Amino acid sequence: MKDLLGNKKAVAHICLVVNDIEKTSQDYADFFGIEKPSWFWAGGQNKEGTIYRGESTDAKAKLAFFNIDNLTVELIEPDNGPSVWREFLDKYGEGFHHIGFNINGMEKTLSLMGENNMPTLQRGGKEDSGWYSYVDTRDTLKIMIELLEGY
Amino acid sequence: MKDLLGNKKAVAHICLVVNDIEKTSQDYADFFGIEKPSWFWAGGQNKEGTIYRGESTDAKAKLAFFNIDNLTVELIEPDNGPSVWREFLDKYGEGFHHIGFNINGMEKTLSLMGENNMPTLQRGGKEDSGWYSYVDTRDTLKIMIELLEGY
Repeated sequence: MKDLLGNKKAVAHICLVVNDIEKTSQDYADFFGIEKPSWFWAGGQNKEGTIYRGESTDAKAKLAFFNIDNLTVELIEPDNGPSVWREFLDKYGEGFHHIGFNINGMEKTLSLMGENNMPTLQRGGKEDSGWYSYVDTRDTLKIMIELLEGY
Repeated sequence: MKDLLGNKKAVAHICLVVNDIEKTSQDYADFFGIEKPSWFWAGGQNKEGTIYRGESTDAKAKLAFFNIDNLTVELIEPDNGPSVWREFLDKYGEGFHHIGFNINGMEKTLSLMGENNMPTLQRGGKEDSGWYSYVDTRDTLKIMIELLEGY
């Protein structure tokens, strides 16, 4: 039996791309009945770099997180730099973007997924926070995923 | 502060619509490293009826569930009858369809959501199992939701 994820079988987060993170954050706060979280900038060129479709990118995005009982709902408003978020928003509009999983062993997991028709689209992160990779699982799983390590 | 969901703040499931539930179920089983679940038919005309956009419908769908650690991943392959699943699949293709929440008090929740620009798209279920409603929250939450009671 295959086991591509190879780790805890839990969805860490569900992520949406949006055009106006302030407005949609308020709508989610009203829906869940919780305080509207502050957003913050993520991404941008750092010493490790962000790689999108094989090229370095200085794309950034505003992020907001809603920590509910069993997982996190993440909102992303990307800037106009080339990224998996901007690509998706321009092509499909606002809405669901990916689900995220915490894993152990980024390199071996990406390698195994690559051998199974799941190419890596974007990678980034920092030594002092953690590392992420977007994997294009749309051909098989019909949605995109993000792998997280060290967060 | 508004609180439209008014209940436990947990995502019960994430649901995708697919064209071939057998194939995509195998791909998810390989991804998670778990056994492929059997699918079963749901929907169809029953004495309570299924209501889609205000009209009775005999649409059915094949359902498969992956119960992972913190939630369920649901796959739906609809038949060609009019339904929120078929509408979505024809318009957007395979992929993410909605997230589901367990609630208490379907009528008051649907009423409150309706007053907040979240109209009901489809309702169904059975006395002996439970009741569901699809609510169109795309204008505010940028995705659709399902409310579940009694399951």
